[in-house]
Amino acid sequence: MLYFERIVIFCSGFVELIPLSFILGFYVSFTATRWWQQYTAIPWPDNDETSRILRRTLMRYLNLTLVLVLRSISIPVKRRFPTKDHLIEAGFMTKPELEMYSSVPSHEFNTFWIPCTWFVNLLRQAKSECRITDSGGLKLIMEEFNDFRSKCGLLWSYDWVSIPLVYTQVVTLSTQAFFLASLLGRQHIVPAEGNKILVHPYGEYYFPIFTLLQFILYMGLLKLGEQLINPFGDDDEDFELNWIIDRHVKVSFLGVDILNADPPPLMKDQYFDEMDIKLPYTEAAVAHKVKTYRGSVAA
Amino acid sequence: MLYFERIVIFCSGFVELIPLSFILGFYVSFTATRWWQQYTAIPWPDNDETSRILRRTLMRYLNLTLVLVLRSISIPVKRRFPTKDHLIEAGFMTKPELEMYSSVPSHEFNTFWIPCTWFVNLLRQAKSECRITDSGGLKLIMEEFNDFRSKCGLLWSYDWVSIPLVYTQVVTLSTQAFFLASLLGRQHIVPAEGNKILVHPYGEYYFPIFTLLQFILYMGLLKLGEQLINPFGDDDEDFELNWIIDRHVKVSFLGVDILNADPPPLMKDQYFDEMDIKLPYTEAAVAHKVKTYRGSVAA
Amino acid sequence: MLYFERIVIFCSGFVELIPLSFILGFYVSFTATRWWQQYTAIPWPDNDETSRILRRTLMRYLNLTLVLVLRSISIPVKRRFPTKDHLIEAGFMTKPELEMYSSVPSHEFNTFWIPCTWFVNLLRQAKSECRITDSGGLKLIMEEFNDFRSKCGLLWSYDWVSIPLVYTQVVTLSTQAFFLASLLGRQHIVPAEGNKILVHPYGEYYFPIFTLLQFILYMGLLKLGEQLINPFGDDDEDFELNWIIDRHVKVSFLGVDILNADPPPLMKDQYFDEMDIKLPYTEAAVAHKVKTYRGSVAA
Amino acid sequence: MLYFERIVIFCSGFVELIPLSFILGFYVSFTATRWWQQYTAIPWPDNDETSRILRRTLMRYLNLTLVLVLRSISIPVKRRFPTKDHLIEAGFMTKPELEMYSSVPSHEFNTFWIPCTWFVNLLRQAKSECRITDSGGLKLIMEEFNDFRSKCGLLWSYDWVSIPLVYTQVVTLSTQAFFLASLLGRQHIVPAEGNKILVHPYGEYYFPIFTLLQFILYMGLLKLGEQLINPFGDDDEDFELNWIIDRHVKVSFLGVDILNADPPPLMKDQYFDEMDIKLPYTEAAVAHKVKTYRGSVAA
Amino acid sequence: MLYFERIVIFCSGFVELIPLSFILGFYVSFTATRWWQQYTAIPWPDNDETSRILRRTLMRYLNLTLVLVLRSISIPVKRRFPTKDHLIEAGFMTKPELEMYSSVPSHEFNTFWIPCTWFVNLLRQAKSECRITDSGGLKLIMEEFNDFRSKCGLLWSYDWVSIPLVYTQVVTLSTQAFFLASLLGRQHIVPAEGNKILVHPYGEYYFPIFTLLQFILYMGLLKLGEQLINPFGDDDEDFELNWIIDRHVKVSFLGVDILNADPPPLMKDQYFDEMDIKLPYTEAAVAHKVKTYRGSVAA
Repeated sequence: MLYFERIVIFCSGFVELIPLSFILGFYVSFTATRWWQQYTAIPWPDNDETSRILRRTLMRYLNLTLVLVLRSISIPVKRRFPTKDHLIEAGFMTKPELEMYSSVPSHEFNTFWIPCTWFVNLLRQAKSECRITDSGGLKLIMEEFNDFRSKCGLLWSYDWVSIPLVYTQVVTLSTQAFFLASLLGRQHIVPAEGNKILVHPYGEYYFPIFTLLQFILYMGLLKLGEQLINPFGDDDEDFELNWIIDRHVKVSFLGVDILNADPPPLMKDQYFDEMDIKLPYTEAAVAHKVKTYRGSVAA
Repeated sequence: MLYFERIVIFCSGFVELIPLSFILGFYVSFTATRWWQQYTAIPWPDNDETSRILRRTLMRYLNLTLVLVLRSISIPVKRRFPTKDHLIEAGFMTKPELEMYSSVPSHEFNTFWIPCTWFVNLLRQAKSECRITDSGGLKLIMEEFNDFRSKCGLLWSYDWVSIPLVYTQVVTLSTQAFFLASLLGRQHIVPAEGNKILVHPYGEYYFPIFTLLQFILYMGLLKLGEQLINPFGDDDEDFELNWIIDRHVKVSFLGVDILNADPPPLMKDQYFDEMDIKLPYTEAAVAHKVKTYRGSVAA
Repeated sequence: MLYFERIVIFCSGFVELIPLSFILGFYVSFTATRWWQQYTAIPWPDNDETSRILRRTLMRYLNLTLVLVLRSISIPVKRRFPTKDHLIEAGFMTKPELEMYSSVPSHEFNTFWIPCTWFVNLLRQAKSECRITDSGGLKLIMEEFNDFRSKCGLLWSYDWVSIPLVYTQVVTLSTQAFFLASLLGRQHIVPAEGNKILVHPYGEYYFPIFTLLQFILYMGLLKLGEQLINPFGDDDEDFELNWIIDRHVKVSFLGVDILNADPPPLMKDQYFDEMDIKLPYTEAAVAHKVKTYRGSVAA
Repeated sequence: MLYFERIVIFCSGFVELIPLSFILGFYVSFTATRWWQQYTAIPWPDNDETSRILRRTLMRYLNLTLVLVLRSISIPVKRRFPTKDHLIEAGFMTKPELEMYSSVPSHEFNTFWIPCTWFVNLLRQAKSECRITDSGGLKLIMEEFNDFRSKCGLLWSYDWVSIPLVYTQVVTLSTQAFFLASLLGRQHIVPAEGNKILVHPYGEYYFPIFTLLQFILYMGLLKLGEQLINPFGDDDEDFELNWIIDRHVKVSFLGVDILNADPPPLMKDQYFDEMDIKLPYTEAAVAHKVKTYRGSVAA
Repeated sequence: MLYFERIVIFCSGFVELIPLSFILGFYVSFTATRWWQQYTAIPWPDNDETSRILRRTLMRYLNLTLVLVLRSISIPVKRRFPTKDHLIEAGFMTKPELEMYSSVPSHEFNTFWIPCTWFVNLLRQAKSECRITDSGGLKLIMEEFNDFRSKCGLLWSYDWVSIPLVYTQVVTLSTQAFFLASLLGRQHIVPAEGNKILVHPYGEYYFPIFTLLQFILYMGLLKLGEQLINPFGDDDEDFELNWIIDRHVKVSFLGVDILNADPPPLMKDQYFDEMDIKLPYTEAAVAHKVKTYRGSVAA
């Protein structure tokens, strides 16, 4: 047996030693769960009460907090607002606010939560000046606000406490060793006469098409896992944070303005005097209409 | 060894390279979890208080919000209400409401949440006009309402942030490569004399019945995974959204009307003066009656 | 090689194509999770306040709602209360209540939630008549009640949205094909001279004891999965719903009566003047007494 | 080939039929999750308000409820308090309370929740006698209490609805069949001349050391799964319920007494006039001090 | 066949008996989940109300509770505060507080919760002296506080109830046996003439490079699992508890001071009179700007 053949057989065997599908299966499963949890950790400031200027400011503080967190953990958001002056320009902050913000010593920790304290302070002031009177409503706002603040903190935590490095390294190392071995181990060799050692039956001819395919599949899974770990970047699967910021600002200001306007006039609805309502179907939809369901045992 | 046989053996070996069962196992497991979470994300407007016209309008706004979200993410619901005029016709909206709705600039984001702001506004108005006096009840309504609104937002999020495309592609590509290889690799060949290479023992005769069966099983799992990703369409496993809309409208209006009626007269129940109650069993049921259970260690 | 032997070898190979253990593993894992979630979805009406007749009626409405849901989804409960008259006979409903219940148009959806609206109505009436004065307590009751109602709705949802049919079919088909193939593939054959094809080493003699054992194991897992999907039937693993109904009625009425009675007289407890308490151990128990634990690093 | 050799080869093949690692993997994974959920279901009565004798009694009722549940589901706790008189002796109950407790008909269900109704009654009495005036505080106590009560109910539910028996049986049967087969199948045999059937390459010599090791590993996993199902017994991994009872009683009484005492005098803290605080490190600790983290993208 | 060769073949076979990838997969998956749950169990005292000295004291008690728990379960924190005097020195406690703390009998359980009772007492005192008047705010503080206290208790529980020892032992034993066997089983041997027993095809030459690689991968996974179990130590993946303590103290005191200051002056924001807002993008960011998304079906 030639020396080259020995290496081929040797590497060929190694490929079976690495349960790559298994390792990648658990890894992707873990990162996919974490990835969805990160999405649900993004807060949405869609809820609220009170007078227009106060309300707009409160909303602005929420959005400011979110942008401050996102600037710390997401490259695209940082690229959009490279300095705090860009925040002023974009209307998230006013000059006096930036001064107050900068006066807090912050070289040892992230201070994204400062606008949150302004939020609480503003509410307390509004209450002591009796611009808010409904204490039940105030409690509701505070609860929504606490939820918003913890979600911002959670976003920062996902950035700080990433997946253990050892885990990522083991998975990456497995994949690399696997393909090094399979590249060598799947060379075509002619089994020598009288050779008892089993030759791997699929040494590939001319072009290693299937090894290439296998490479694509496993690399796809590995890259998928890596992308899912930090979904706040520029990748295709990443969340569009800049669009979310745009949407939040517009929707929260719009919501405030609509809330200040009168609601639509109260009028009787179409089925006011009917008990047994028939809702219309278009012709295209009626073809798919299902019979009702009352329970698997219901008579 | 002939050229054809080489290809057969070559492909035959590749089949073992793809751990398809594993990849599909994790994939279906992931999508099945997501599928059930999507079901629980559909809100049910079954809870409530207040005077009839106000209450019907509030209920209508909840249902309207839900229908507006579903029109954005579900083909069957869109088919049923292709334009907003269909919403008016079906009694979800009035003309003045549609005008107010359309006046909001919305070319950059979905505005399904506008009826929610009307809902809040209406409640505030009712409160300031003292048509609602119980502040505890009001807080409860607001909490239920916030829950309803976040669930609508969650529905939209499931539509926006789907399963990463790479994941779906890797899984689909695996399955396709697997069957291409097994189609070629399971041809019947006669092993040449003195051939040391192992011939796959189940080259199939005449008709590849088992490969077909295997194909059905794996394709079944793949299709299952794909269907579970978006359960708001026309497939058999999809949720019957149009029926849910019908049910919600009818039940919420019915609930309002029943709530306005008097409750049944208060009367003593059957066991009012008994301490040790014996509930009846039918003869068919008593055969299955179990002894009581007080705890595994209870004397 | 004879024709029979060919079939044996052919089938024998197929057995390896189906990763049955894998498919069943994920399936049972999924159904087991769902099964426990269904158990936790059964509501327990163990909490409450107010005057005796009112309180008994409120409790009765909760129990009635639960029985109405269970009659729609569980064969044993349906067998016990085949008609609504059986509900009257068992004291869950009064005649006037049944009349009110039946007057609601319900041919299109399940109306198990109607007693819930009575519950709310009754509470509102009691409040406006000042029979309930504590608004904090009222809010607590309403929260408990909303939880009870959503759990009833969830029970109905588990019945309506079962596990996707395709999933069950794929799993069942795998299992059946697997055993058909292994029955044929494990026949005893004598390998012909010069036959290069590997004969499965465990063609079984006389009686296929191990194939039978394997059959029992896999069928056990399959049946387990199927039973866990709907745990509201007659199977051994199913929840004893009729017993739960008995228990709920008795416990909720008992609870009401005990709540109306005076609590035990307030007296000093045994350790009132001691600071460092020594609780007694029986001799049998003291042998197992553990040293205390203050923390892994605590001094 | 001799008859003995046939059996060896036959059994040897069977070992490969059972995917034991897989079955045990899912089984242990399921039981481990359930095991931790059971731990979190144990309630801790560490929270509270009000006058000393009332408060001690309330605390005692919580602890009594817990002990009553645990006596029903845990052998060690039952061994410690074999009769209800032991509960009186240990100071959990007074004589009049036991009489009231025993007067409730309870042969059909567990009545561990009776002290809970006393708890509610006592609170209501205290409120109507104006010994508790803060309604917000009262609501908080009731919420904590409801949580405590549901956890006790959950403990009882874990005991009642155990893991489906079929599951445990399938797993146990697999393991036993696996080892029976491997004991027979790994005997050392000399392959006859011209025998085409593959002899298992690791018939073990003299002493089956590796089969023994494998046995230990799999049995370890099986026993682990079985222990995790019911963690309220005497096993090493089980929770030390008697110690928990001791701790709860002492801590809850201590908490009441400390709460009655005055809090420490209010004084300015060390950093009252500083803005930029430096907290000390010991020399041993400073070696491990990390640089601060402000966010992966933060400047 | 020589004796040495027999051992090699014997060990070689055993390697296949241990499904190490499987066992490690489930193990790491379990510990990784637990690891993240432990992170979320660390409480963050970022929320609050009231007058400065009172508020600072309340905050200090929260931080003190956390440090007391962490001293019991984390070696780095214990190293930093080896005695309670170090806590005084670091400003967490005052001398009178330490005296009160030490006067409580605590040789049987951990008393980290004592500052929590001070917290409650202080709040009650402040309320009875009318320094806090807003009962809604008080309830909110108490809810946040209860959450903080349960998280501290949960941290202690994770330390007390670790992963079952049997599980860790089985996994470690598997790994060790696996590598002992593979070290022996992968020696290079020359298959004797006429030997029917299959020689493992990858007896490695000169240096066992692939066995070494496999060793690194599996050991990496095992060590990863072990590190994830207790993330409060000195390892690289462990949470930086001392930094968290620093951050908590500084942030909570800062928050109190900012809350006492006035909020920024209320002024109209930049978009006050605009309805359709255009938020700026930097040039670098605009390249990545995405089109809006209104729903997969939205027109």
